[in-house]
Amino acid sequence: MLSAPEVLKNASSEGESWTGNSKLVEWVHNSCGQGSAGVVNGLIFRQLFDKESSTFTYILGDELSREAVIIDPVDTLVERDLSFIGELGLELKFGLNTHAHADHVTGTSLIRNRLPPGSFKSVISASSGAKADVKVKQGSKIHFGNRFLQVRLTPGHTAGCACFVLDDDSRVFTGDTLLVRGCGRTDFQEGDSSTLYKSVHEQLFTLPDQCSVFPAHDYRGRTSSSIREEKRFNPRLGGGKTEKDFVAIMKELKLSTPKLIDVAVPKNMACGV
Amino acid sequence: MLSAPEVLKNASSEGESWTGNSKLVEWVHNSCGQGSAGVVNGLIFRQLFDKESSTFTYILGDELSREAVIIDPVDTLVERDLSFIGELGLELKFGLNTHAHADHVTGTSLIRNRLPPGSFKSVISASSGAKADVKVKQGSKIHFGNRFLQVRLTPGHTAGCACFVLDDDSRVFTGDTLLVRGCGRTDFQEGDSSTLYKSVHEQLFTLPDQCSVFPAHDYRGRTSSSIREEKRFNPRLGGGKTEKDFVAIMKELKLSTPKLIDVAVPKNMACGV
Repeated sequence: MLSAPEVLKNASSEGESWTGNSKLVEWVHNSCGQGSAGVVNGLIFRQLFDKESSTFTYILGDELSREAVIIDPVDTLVERDLSFIGELGLELKFGLNTHAHADHVTGTSLIRNRLPPGSFKSVISASSGAKADVKVKQGSKIHFGNRFLQVRLTPGHTAGCACFVLDDDSRVFTGDTLLVRGCGRTDFQEGDSSTLYKSVHEQLFTLPDQCSVFPAHDYRGRTSSSIREEKRFNPRLGGGKTEKDFVAIMKELKLSTPKLIDVAVPKNMACGV
Repeated sequence: MLSAPEVLKNASSEGESWTGNSKLVEWVHNSCGQGSAGVVNGLIFRQLFDKESSTFTYILGDELSREAVIIDPVDTLVERDLSFIGELGLELKFGLNTHAHADHVTGTSLIRNRLPPGSFKSVISASSGAKADVKVKQGSKIHFGNRFLQVRLTPGHTAGCACFVLDDDSRVFTGDTLLVRGCGRTDFQEGDSSTLYKSVHEQLFTLPDQCSVFPAHDYRGRTSSSIREEKRFNPRLGGGKTEKDFVAIMKELKLSTPKLIDVAVPKNMACGV
């Protein structure tokens, strides 16, 4: 069995597994090759919304062990989120950021300050260059009880963007890489349209058609989509659009700069501190 | 087999079944007493949000037949909703209103005008006194393909409020009767606190603990709850609060009148026309 500090030392290996405690590392090792049988059900799932920045936050919990993760929490709504987590009887292990957001400040540092020392870790991709307790790579797994999320790196909106795929491929949390009938902009924060097109086609459109897409934002009140729908109906990336089409579409977008960018990005590069 | 007009004539019988076409009436009659076995899966489900009025709209579809219903559509977002329904390959049969809303105008009339004549019907409780194609009562079933929603009348916020329970008791659409850690106000539109308390305790808190609660509104970005949580944590109605406690709590609320009430209620009493 590995102790928690030993697990942390292994941070640089590809395909690593992140768990909240050492017992689970053993469980993961013992169950290698068995797939996700028996843990398909028992997922506690909640979607939350920030009206100010139109950001979605997600809570995923393992019904049996009560271990949980939160994806893309917003600093101003940490009290709401922790209240919900407490009432659901969940123990929060990880706070995942899909990237360093430009439109709001992450809540992961505030959450860490509210929970017992060492019990909660912030997570972001190593390629983001941002500070966090755990820096993940392509294939990294973040475990909560008997469930896990696996990292797919999807640069393009930012160089450090990551998506998180649930163990049974039933859900993917796409951050700003793939939105409902849209995608994140590519005109700042090391954004690159060709890179985003490749990320979506190679890392996301290769997921099963029925996989549900849960984005970081929606501005028209749509809360989810599916890989099948986005492959067919995404007006920028789906329906046979080529990389060249996509680059041209993105070049024509005339978007104003997010009002919080000068505050949010530096803070988010420091894990919201 | 009953023809569609004959089905409509049976509107006043309690526990009636509403289907979009006569073939399904036969299916319903043939399957009486078989419960919902075999139709637990295959539900297409989407939650949509109106940022203006903080209203949730729901689309439920039967994967096999592609028949679908929409709950509490908002007039200004009908284009979004129909676009989504088209892309999901669904055929919309019914538009259900949980009650005559005071904060937005229902989209059911606009939807009916956009679809082939006779293919889509608006639904509201008979006790609302509002106009609609189908007026439902306690126990009425609204069928879409092999799935159905069953009506539970829950007066209190308005005299005509209804909730819709999915066939397998996995989800309830509670309108303004039960909100996440809250409930609808009782100070206008024939609202009555004692009646609301009884409706929630007799019609909703008797559902299974794990039944998901999908409300008509949330003002803090919470998209769903469960019967278990509301029984334990609803600060007005749960955690052992008595009818007397509830009446006192509701009496103390100092709420301003919804800005759209003078426009919305008359329109919604006429099915959004």
